[in-house]
Amino acid sequence: MAITVGIQGASGYTGAELIRLLSAHPQVEIGFVTSERYAGQAMDRIFPHLSLRQDLVCRPLEDESGFASCQVVFCALPHETSMKVVPKLLRQGLKVVDLSADFRLRDPEVYREWYKVTHEAPELLPEAVYGLPEIYRDRIKGARLIANPGCYPTSVILALAPLLMDGGVIDTGSIVIDSKSGVSGAGRAPAENKLFAELAEGFRPYSTGFHRHTPEMEQIISDLLGREVRIRFAPHLLPQTRGILSTCHVRPLAGREGSDWQGRFEHFYRDAHFVRVMKPGMLPATNHVRASNYVHVAVVEDRRTGWLTILSTIDNLVKGAAGQAVQNMNIMFGLDEKMGLTQLPVFP
Amino acid sequence: MAITVGIQGASGYTGAELIRLLSAHPQVEIGFVTSERYAGQAMDRIFPHLSLRQDLVCRPLEDESGFASCQVVFCALPHETSMKVVPKLLRQGLKVVDLSADFRLRDPEVYREWYKVTHEAPELLPEAVYGLPEIYRDRIKGARLIANPGCYPTSVILALAPLLMDGGVIDTGSIVIDSKSGVSGAGRAPAENKLFAELAEGFRPYSTGFHRHTPEMEQIISDLLGREVRIRFAPHLLPQTRGILSTCHVRPLAGREGSDWQGRFEHFYRDAHFVRVMKPGMLPATNHVRASNYVHVAVVEDRRTGWLTILSTIDNLVKGAAGQAVQNMNIMFGLDEKMGLTQLPVFP
Amino acid sequence: MAITVGIQGASGYTGAELIRLLSAHPQVEIGFVTSERYAGQAMDRIFPHLSLRQDLVCRPLEDESGFASCQVVFCALPHETSMKVVPKLLRQGLKVVDLSADFRLRDPEVYREWYKVTHEAPELLPEAVYGLPEIYRDRIKGARLIANPGCYPTSVILALAPLLMDGGVIDTGSIVIDSKSGVSGAGRAPAENKLFAELAEGFRPYSTGFHRHTPEMEQIISDLLGREVRIRFAPHLLPQTRGILSTCHVRPLAGREGSDWQGRFEHFYRDAHFVRVMKPGMLPATNHVRASNYVHVAVVEDRRTGWLTILSTIDNLVKGAAGQAVQNMNIMFGLDEKMGLTQLPVFP
Amino acid sequence: MAITVGIQGASGYTGAELIRLLSAHPQVEIGFVTSERYAGQAMDRIFPHLSLRQDLVCRPLEDESGFASCQVVFCALPHETSMKVVPKLLRQGLKVVDLSADFRLRDPEVYREWYKVTHEAPELLPEAVYGLPEIYRDRIKGARLIANPGCYPTSVILALAPLLMDGGVIDTGSIVIDSKSGVSGAGRAPAENKLFAELAEGFRPYSTGFHRHTPEMEQIISDLLGREVRIRFAPHLLPQTRGILSTCHVRPLAGREGSDWQGRFEHFYRDAHFVRVMKPGMLPATNHVRASNYVHVAVVEDRRTGWLTILSTIDNLVKGAAGQAVQNMNIMFGLDEKMGLTQLPVFP
Repeated sequence: MAITVGIQGASGYTGAELIRLLSAHPQVEIGFVTSERYAGQAMDRIFPHLSLRQDLVCRPLEDESGFASCQVVFCALPHETSMKVVPKLLRQGLKVVDLSADFRLRDPEVYREWYKVTHEAPELLPEAVYGLPEIYRDRIKGARLIANPGCYPTSVILALAPLLMDGGVIDTGSIVIDSKSGVSGAGRAPAENKLFAELAEGFRPYSTGFHRHTPEMEQIISDLLGREVRIRFAPHLLPQTRGILSTCHVRPLAGREGSDWQGRFEHFYRDAHFVRVMKPGMLPATNHVRASNYVHVAVVEDRRTGWLTILSTIDNLVKGAAGQAVQNMNIMFGLDEKMGLTQLPVFP
Repeated sequence: MAITVGIQGASGYTGAELIRLLSAHPQVEIGFVTSERYAGQAMDRIFPHLSLRQDLVCRPLEDESGFASCQVVFCALPHETSMKVVPKLLRQGLKVVDLSADFRLRDPEVYREWYKVTHEAPELLPEAVYGLPEIYRDRIKGARLIANPGCYPTSVILALAPLLMDGGVIDTGSIVIDSKSGVSGAGRAPAENKLFAELAEGFRPYSTGFHRHTPEMEQIISDLLGREVRIRFAPHLLPQTRGILSTCHVRPLAGREGSDWQGRFEHFYRDAHFVRVMKPGMLPATNHVRASNYVHVAVVEDRRTGWLTILSTIDNLVKGAAGQAVQNMNIMFGLDEKMGLTQLPVFP
Repeated sequence: MAITVGIQGASGYTGAELIRLLSAHPQVEIGFVTSERYAGQAMDRIFPHLSLRQDLVCRPLEDESGFASCQVVFCALPHETSMKVVPKLLRQGLKVVDLSADFRLRDPEVYREWYKVTHEAPELLPEAVYGLPEIYRDRIKGARLIANPGCYPTSVILALAPLLMDGGVIDTGSIVIDSKSGVSGAGRAPAENKLFAELAEGFRPYSTGFHRHTPEMEQIISDLLGREVRIRFAPHLLPQTRGILSTCHVRPLAGREGSDWQGRFEHFYRDAHFVRVMKPGMLPATNHVRASNYVHVAVVEDRRTGWLTILSTIDNLVKGAAGQAVQNMNIMFGLDEKMGLTQLPVFP
Repeated sequence: MAITVGIQGASGYTGAELIRLLSAHPQVEIGFVTSERYAGQAMDRIFPHLSLRQDLVCRPLEDESGFASCQVVFCALPHETSMKVVPKLLRQGLKVVDLSADFRLRDPEVYREWYKVTHEAPELLPEAVYGLPEIYRDRIKGARLIANPGCYPTSVILALAPLLMDGGVIDTGSIVIDSKSGVSGAGRAPAENKLFAELAEGFRPYSTGFHRHTPEMEQIISDLLGREVRIRFAPHLLPQTRGILSTCHVRPLAGREGSDWQGRFEHFYRDAHFVRVMKPGMLPATNHVRASNYVHVAVVEDRRTGWLTILSTIDNLVKGAAGQAVQNMNIMFGLDEKMGLTQLPVFP
C-alpha cells in the first residue's frame, strides 16, 4: 500500500533529487508537486533528466488543496518561506519533512540572530524533531514535523557524535571544523559566484566564521555533550557539483591520548547502515559516496601534536538533504529505514 | 529465483559499474568475480565506493572453476584477452555477455586490420549476437554469446537507425560523425594522457580518422541500410568523466528535405523504453542521462544548408557498457528488459 | 612614447583580459575605463585578480569626455550597444577596435536577419576592417575602425583559409564545422545555463544550426573563395572555462586527394607568428594555447572516406577576443604586431 | 647582458613552468636543459604548449658539461636525485636554485626521519639558504645554493609570519593548518590517484597528519618565533590543476583578542610586492592568483570562539615553485626582484 507524498518546491536541485529518489521507492507515489517559478510546467521541461516524469506538472505554491490526497509533504523551500507554509500543511493533518532551516533551531531568538528575521511559527519549534536518524531515530518515529538537518551539520555531527557521549572525550574548546562543499548546495538560482567560469580552478573560502549552519551544529553538539559549546566553523566552496567533506580537528581530553578511536567509531555506528567507518589506512573522498545516502568516516590521531582528525563525507543532496528526508519518512511510516535508499554510490 | 552471475575483470570501471547495477537488480546474485591486478582483494579495497560489497573478493582470471555456480558471465576484459577466455566459458555451458570488442566484428580479417592481431576464436563470430536491444532484440533472446556494443557505436547507431531502414533516406556518402567522450571510456590504467592536469581545461581530438570503433559502426550501419557504407568518424576527449555525445551530420536524399524527422524518430522508438526522443526545441546534454541507461536523441534540420543533425547522448559506462550488458542479460533470461535499470539519471 | 588607450565595458571577461594583456604591453598606458554595472568601482573590487590595478576606476558608459586623452578605444560592449557608442568615439577623432559583432557584417540586412535589430550606424560598415591580421594585415594598417572577429570565426577561418585561395581546393557544398567552446565566451552575466552545477560533466550542443557567428564566417569564407558559400556550423559548450576547438570537415575537390596538405598549411602560415601548424602526428588541445595569442592547427586526411579534417584551437578570450584586439592595435599604430603578446601558453 | 641559465629536469610541470617564465624574462637566456625520460627530444614534443621553444632539446641528466656556459642552474629534480646532482654543479662554480626538498631541512636526521633516506650531501646544508624572499631576502643575496621552499610551506609561512615576530602573538599549541592543493603539485608521472576520472567531483584528504612538508614548516616557524613549535598540518587534494589555499586556524595569546590584525598584516607586507593583503571583507580564491607569482592573504577574527583564521592562496607552480625560483635568481644576481614576474593572474 503506497504512501502518497507531495513536494513543495520541486524545481530546485533538492526537489529534483527527491523526485529521483522517490521514483525508485517501492512504497511511494508522488501525488503532487509545486514550484514558484515554474508553475504549470512539466518536470521534463524544468529538468530534462526527469523526462520519465512528464506526468508531474508543477502547481503554484499556493495551491494547497492538492495535498489533500497526500500523507506527507516534503518542503524543499527556502527558509522564511517554509515557516509560512508548514503550519498550513500541519493543519491539514499532513506529516511534514521540512528541508529548510526554519524548524532546526529550538530558540527563536537564535533564529532571529542568525537569519535576521523573526520566526513566524515559534509555537511549532518545541515539537519539531531534528531528523538525524542515527542519533534521534526514536523521536522521529512519532513525529509530525521533522526538521531535516543541514548538509554541513549532517557531516559534522556524524563525525563528532562518537566523541561526545557520556560527557565526551574531547577538549570542547578545541573544535575546529574545516568543511568543503560542492556548489549544488547553493541551489539553482543564477548568481555570478556560482558560474562555471568563476569556480573552475577556483577553490575558495566563504562566510569564514559566520555561516548559518554554525548554531545548528552547536545546538546538537551541546545537546549530545550535555553542556554548551561553541565551535569554529570554516566552510569552503569546491570546484565540483556534489559532495561535502568535513575535516574536524579536535583535541582528546588529557589522559585520552592513544585511545582506540577506530574501535569507538565502529562500535558507535555498528547498527547504522548508512554510516561506514573506513578501515584503518583508508580515507574518504566525496566521489566515493556520490549520489548515495552513505556516509564515509575516518579517524586519524596525530600523536606528534596531540590532535585528532575526523574526516567525513556525504553527498550533500542525498544524505545532506533528499536522501535523509526519505530516510526520515521511512521511519515515520514504520517502513524499513533503508527502503529505496540502498543504491550504491556512482563512481567514477 | 535469482540468476547467479560472474564477472571476469571486475576491477576496471566497467566491472565496478556492473557491480553497482547488479547489486540493485532484484533477480540477480553476484557469485564470482575475478581480476588480474587485484586477485585476492576485496572490492572495497579496489573501489572504496563499493564498501557494501566487501563480500566480493577478486579471484585470479585463471580461476574458472568458480563460474560453475553461475548461469551467465559478464566479460569486462580488454580485447585480445576476451577472445581467449570466452571460448572456455562457453564450453562450461555458460552464457556470456562480452563487453570487449572481440566478438563485434563479423569478419576476422577486418578485426586483424584494425586491432593488429589475429582472431583466436573466429569460429564463434557467426553465432555472436550484436547486443543492441533496440535493433536486435529478437536475436538476443536466443543467444549464447552477446557482443556488447562499443560506447561510441551505441550512441551513433541509435542516432542513425531511424534514417537507415527500408533503404534509407540519407545520402550515404555524407555521414560525418563528430563524437565527444568522457575519459572513463579509456579505463583506469594510469597514463599521462588521462591525468587530471592534462585534461582539465584541455578538450582535444584523438585518433582522428582511425578509431577502432569505425568498422563496428560501418558494419551495423551497412547491415541496416542493406549496402556497404563508410563513415567519417572523429572522436574527441572531454574534460569530464562520464558521457558520450555524438553529433551526426548527414544529408537527406534529394526530395526528402523538410521531412517530418521528429515524427520519424518518435515512431521508430515508440516501444524503446530507454531511447527518449526529445521534444522539439530541446537538445541533449551528457549530464541529463548520467548514471542511467537512458539515451536522449534530438534531430534538427538546417534548411539553409541542407544538413540534418542528429544529436544523441548516453552514459558510456551504462548504456555504453554495463547497463546495456544487463539489458541484454534480462532479454536472454526472459526477464523484463528494464529490470534493475530504471533508476533516473543523476543530475546535477 | 606610450599609446594611451581606453576601454569601454571593462567589467566583463573580455574587458578584464584586455587589462591583463595591456598591463604587460611595453608601449601602452590604460587611460580610461568604463562599466555600466560597476561605475565608480575600482577594478580589484570587480575582479580580485586585478588587485594590482586598483588605480583603474570604472566610469559610467556615458562619460565619454574621459576618452579625450586616448588615442584608441577598445569597445568590449554587447552588440547593439556598440553601434551606439562607436560613432561618437570616431567623431572624437579616436581609433576604435570594436570587439562586438556590430561592425563585422558588411550588409545591414544580414545583420538585421541574424541579430533581429536594425543597424544604427550602417554608414560605417563600408570602412570597418575585419581585424584578422593573418588575412587582412594590410587593410588593418590604415584603418580607423576595426571589427574584431568573433571567437568561433577566428578559429574556423584560420583553419580553412589555406584551402580557399585561388578558387579553393575543396568542395564548397561539404563544409561541416563542429565547434566546441569553453563557457567564458558566454560572458559573466549570471544565467542558469552557465552555472557550474549545470555544466560540469554536462557537455552539450546549443544553437544547433542557427548560431550568429554563421553569417560572419560565410562572409569571409566567400570573400576568400571568390564566390558565395554556405557552411554547416554546429557549436557546443564544453565543461571548461577557456578555449575553442573547431573540427572542420571538408572534402577535397576531385583530383586533389592526397595533396601535400601539411606543406600547404606550413607555407600559407610561414610568416604568421601566432599560427602554429603542428607537426604531422600531433593534434591540438585547448590547454596547449591557454592564456596565449597562439593558434594550433593540424590537418588530417582520411583516404578511406575522402574527408579532410582540419583542427584548430585558440583561447577564445585571447586570440578570440582581447589578444587579437591588441594585435590589431599594434598594426594600426605601426608597432611590431607581436608586442606584448608573446607570453607562452599556460599549461597545465 | 643576459644571464645564461640551465634547467635540470625540464620535462616535469615545474620544468615547463620555468621555461615559460624564463622565456619572458628580459635578462635571461636558457642555455641548457636536461631530462631523464625525454633525453634527445625537443620541448615541443614533450610539451606542445612550448612549440615556440623547439630550440630547447633535452640532454641526459648526466651530461653536466653542458652547464659550462651557464651561471646558474635550476634543479627541478625529485628529492634524492637532487642531492646527488647539486654538489657537482656547485663544484663547477655554478649557482644553484634547488626546487626539491633536499636542502630545505637543516638537520640531516630530520631529513632521514621524514624522507626515509640518508642525506648524501649534509655538508652543504649549513650554507643552503631557504629561498623565501619575503623573509630571507638578505641571505639570498649572497647565496650560492638556494633551497626553494615547498608549495605548502610558502602558503603557510607567509600566512603566519606576521604573527610570529618578536616572540609571537599566538598560542603556539593551537596551530591547525588545513591546506588544499591542486593536483599539478603531484607532478606528471602517471598514477591512478591522479587520473581525471578519480579526481573530478572527488575532493579528498591525503597523508593526514604525516605530510613531508610538516617539518619544513615547523623549522621556519620555529625560527621566526624563536622557540620550537609543532603544527597540525592536514593536506587535501582539489579537483583542479593549479592552486593552493591554506586555511590557518590559530588562537591569539590572551590579551591579544581584537587586535588590529588587518593593520599588522598590511604593515608587515608593506614592501612585499608579491604579497597582497586583501581589503577587509574580501577573501582569496585560487583562480585569482592563477599563473602568477602573487599571494593573496586575508585575516578574519571570530570573536565568538576566539579563533583567528588566516587564508592564503598561491599558484603552486609559480610562487610555490618556478616563480619563486626566478625571484630568488633575480635577487642572487642583483636584479630587480620582480623582473619577469609581474604578469597579472589569468582569470577566469
